[in-house]
Amino acid sequence: MSHPHPELSDPPEPPADGLRIVALGGLGEIGRNMTVYEYGGRLLVVDCGVLFPETEQPGIDLILPDFDYIRDRLDDIEAVVLTHGHEDHIGAVPYLLRERPDIPLVGSRLTLALLEAKLTEHRIRPVTRVVGEGDRSTFGPFDCEFLAVNHSIPDALALAVRTGAGLVLHTGDFKMDQLPLDGRLTDLPGFARLGAEGIDLLLSDSTNAEVSGFVPSERNIGPVVDEVFRTAQERLIVACFASHVHRVQQVLDAAVANGRKVCFIGRSMVRNMGVARELGYLNVPEGIMVEPKELEDVPADRLVLVCTGSQGEPMSALSRMANRDHQQIRITDRDTVMLASSLIPGNENAVNRVINGLTRWGARVVHKGNALVHVSGHASAGELLYVLNMTKPGNFMPIHGEWRHLRAHAKLAALTGVPDENIVIAEDGVVVDLVEGKASIVGAVPAGYVYVDGLSVGEVTETSLKDRRILGEEGFVSIVIGIDSSSGKVVAGPEIHARGAGIVNEDFDEVLARIDQVLRDAAGDGVNDLHQISQLVRRTVGKWVSDTYRRRPMIIPVIVEV
Amino acid sequence: MSHPHPELSDPPEPPADGLRIVALGGLGEIGRNMTVYEYGGRLLVVDCGVLFPETEQPGIDLILPDFDYIRDRLDDIEAVVLTHGHEDHIGAVPYLLRERPDIPLVGSRLTLALLEAKLTEHRIRPVTRVVGEGDRSTFGPFDCEFLAVNHSIPDALALAVRTGAGLVLHTGDFKMDQLPLDGRLTDLPGFARLGAEGIDLLLSDSTNAEVSGFVPSERNIGPVVDEVFRTAQERLIVACFASHVHRVQQVLDAAVANGRKVCFIGRSMVRNMGVARELGYLNVPEGIMVEPKELEDVPADRLVLVCTGSQGEPMSALSRMANRDHQQIRITDRDTVMLASSLIPGNENAVNRVINGLTRWGARVVHKGNALVHVSGHASAGELLYVLNMTKPGNFMPIHGEWRHLRAHAKLAALTGVPDENIVIAEDGVVVDLVEGKASIVGAVPAGYVYVDGLSVGEVTETSLKDRRILGEEGFVSIVIGIDSSSGKVVAGPEIHARGAGIVNEDFDEVLARIDQVLRDAAGDGVNDLHQISQLVRRTVGKWVSDTYRRRPMIIPVIVEV
Repeated sequence: MSHPHPELSDPPEPPADGLRIVALGGLGEIGRNMTVYEYGGRLLVVDCGVLFPETEQPGIDLILPDFDYIRDRLDDIEAVVLTHGHEDHIGAVPYLLRERPDIPLVGSRLTLALLEAKLTEHRIRPVTRVVGEGDRSTFGPFDCEFLAVNHSIPDALALAVRTGAGLVLHTGDFKMDQLPLDGRLTDLPGFARLGAEGIDLLLSDSTNAEVSGFVPSERNIGPVVDEVFRTAQERLIVACFASHVHRVQQVLDAAVANGRKVCFIGRSMVRNMGVARELGYLNVPEGIMVEPKELEDVPADRLVLVCTGSQGEPMSALSRMANRDHQQIRITDRDTVMLASSLIPGNENAVNRVINGLTRWGARVVHKGNALVHVSGHASAGELLYVLNMTKPGNFMPIHGEWRHLRAHAKLAALTGVPDENIVIAEDGVVVDLVEGKASIVGAVPAGYVYVDGLSVGEVTETSLKDRRILGEEGFVSIVIGIDSSSGKVVAGPEIHARGAGIVNEDFDEVLARIDQVLRDAAGDGVNDLHQISQLVRRTVGKWVSDTYRRRPMIIPVIVEV
Repeated sequence: MSHPHPELSDPPEPPADGLRIVALGGLGEIGRNMTVYEYGGRLLVVDCGVLFPETEQPGIDLILPDFDYIRDRLDDIEAVVLTHGHEDHIGAVPYLLRERPDIPLVGSRLTLALLEAKLTEHRIRPVTRVVGEGDRSTFGPFDCEFLAVNHSIPDALALAVRTGAGLVLHTGDFKMDQLPLDGRLTDLPGFARLGAEGIDLLLSDSTNAEVSGFVPSERNIGPVVDEVFRTAQERLIVACFASHVHRVQQVLDAAVANGRKVCFIGRSMVRNMGVARELGYLNVPEGIMVEPKELEDVPADRLVLVCTGSQGEPMSALSRMANRDHQQIRITDRDTVMLASSLIPGNENAVNRVINGLTRWGARVVHKGNALVHVSGHASAGELLYVLNMTKPGNFMPIHGEWRHLRAHAKLAALTGVPDENIVIAEDGVVVDLVEGKASIVGAVPAGYVYVDGLSVGEVTETSLKDRRILGEEGFVSIVIGIDSSSGKVVAGPEIHARGAGIVNEDFDEVLARIDQVLRDAAGDGVNDLHQISQLVRRTVGKWVSDTYRRRPMIIPVIVEV
């Protein structure tokens, strides 16, 4: 369990006419958003995303929500509503569908199209239901209304859920761009209408709750992109998220205006932009695209490459270019590189390495640190206040955020007049019941990390990770000893092997002598239990390493019986 | 070698009347600053600092400059000049003195006092020579003049070096606070005087060359600190660098003004503030200090704790408080915590974890993200232009910075009129000769990372680190097999052990069968070379892990002869 709640116990049975809300992810962390609503014995799941690992989870590919809470009740799920197509909201769906493939997936046209492209790679054909803003649909006891919200991906939706327990507004991720490129505003009038009806509980995006003021419009980036196009000496390389359709649209528009051809680089960029184009979310002017194999035919100053890698991912095309490791593209001092994206916390080092690498070869690097080439996808404090004031919720629960963001958002809610006792700050697994217009914490369920590593899901445990952390920091020393099973005498070894411990083979003479002595003493004392011998060896070697090197590698005695 | 220069070859013999400059650290990186000047066969070293490891150097304590370039010439060193007392400028001195203990150390009073306190812990009694601003001293052929510079530690100095090859100004770290708390300004008039005399080469601090504008005065922090004191509900905890005397002074002043007692927590804070107080750099009002053991006797709202840990160091008192792991101090929602320091790149995750931990328990956390509780110690671009314009250098070499900072600083120099051909951007190990008023790159020498890990220096190699990275990401699988030395038959095992690989013991049956088969086949084919058998086993297990789990742990076959 990543977030134990020693102070909270198992929850009681759900109240007869209450709505139960349990987030299995997204509270106390940014990522793997998943909220389970329960009413009248039926479940509605909102979002099912992944969390990307940090350095504390070495070797891990993805972190999923723990489905244990609903594993025995998969048949009770009426639907999974996906608010938008980002990985931290849809990425865990393939893993949930492995457990019950016919759970209905509900979302907007683009959201479902992106999800289906992904599910195809997992060889899953899902049951889907497209909805749009203004739609109202019933899933079992859940009467759902969908509202448009603006975000850094098109076609995002907020969700209003009506049950016998009242009206809940779940915003999903959103921002409040008042001049959005596609004209699709966050539906504040709709929020106001629901507020007038009486919102019993508001769950709202906390990502930027600590940031004061207002997020600039995506529109402000256009002139900056244009300026970079105009001043780029020769080749231009733009890195951004593979889902940021509007950002890519701005690059395409600038390419047309400046007479450059565009080439998409990388699987996810090609796939997502293909989906967006097909559905009409991305307008690709005739004849502007070139294929990677045609790059040689286009003069460098007539070219713009669009790729991922803006987070410094080591295997990305951009990282390989920065290391002069890329087969096709060799960075020179005539190149301009634009990182047109945010810097996700945790990736600072990796991005810095890419910027330094590109700079080393003389490229001009434009990034959010030196130009307005990115605006956040999440509403800031000033904008969150609008939502709170328009919705006037009876109860408030901040979602999508770490502790610092949840607390900051709670403070904003209090400032707009939500009574302290009606503000619920919960972590993953905390059980919140909405009964008779009052939301309260009633217990907690396990909601630990489930690790995806290679093909395995959930098999890599905290113990494995602890081993990895020790091995990664200190390496190991193993001691192999063969013991005759009848006589108990040492017949082979001890042999010592060290890896990553910074100890070279020549250093082993002294400790081998010590082990020999310990084994002789043990034999003299009549010790013949293999486990005991193993412990003696471990202590001897551990002490030697600690005294000699002040280090604590993993010590692994292996006693084989011959 | 961390920065190989395949394009550069061994340098020629130093020119007869030229000055040779080789940075062994600090170019292409922020940290382990060390520059070696050579003239007439004699050496002058400026600074000798450490670099703190990143996640790519797991388990490493410190990274030193590679002394190989000067190892055979230690007796040629006239002096080591230390520009100020930060670890990235003095931290490697103990390791250099191990090789020749009587190298004269030259620096300001505080710099040498901090260094001596550190050397005492290493049981070294150095040869020192105190200098101050305005002093001019000769070390062999190096005629050195010292000038005051303002920085985030008191008593920092710039260095002007005159030799037969001309006049060089080496700024060290500096900023340009025009209203410094101690009234000690960066000596711009001195820079101007040297400029009028004719500076042949300027080496200047590039850390903030990418940041436009000007750094606010340290004085601006006072009112913010005061406000935090006034609004802190009960206990106040301030975390900052253990060397930031002026910051601590502001806390002491605010404590007096607000009637609070102060307690220093942590060895380095106690040691450094003791030194600063003794030398008169820190003014500690009578009766304001309390000892940790007296904390119980002071009411929480009359108390301020000053500790380190502002970078999220996992073993620091502050991290332990954030985890509710600290023996004495238990964070509650009545506590206020102020992180009054910068966020060193690479520490973002760790600091975020501390802020979230403290916030989780309800503490109010004030940090540079939400209040002006820190200003940088390094001049920004706007200020660097002043220095360039005042010194009018014949040649310019940016120092103290990663590639992005060096290139940005070079661009500033070009804008002020330094001709492109007189701007030298070098990395660690690049050899620069100043001859007849022209600085040029003439070659390169090795300047790789030297790792300190526990008691060993330089023994942990890139190979060990590569092993650690694999072990840390993927764990390992070892296979022990006992083979009879005369018959060549397997007499023990195979036994398999996996750690950190996410493979549980129950999974081994299949691969054990495969190994058995491989061993039988090998015996049938008459293969009895242990190395060959070992390779067969490695391949078998590696393929099994890859097919079954899509992972690549380290595979370690151990064949013991019985």
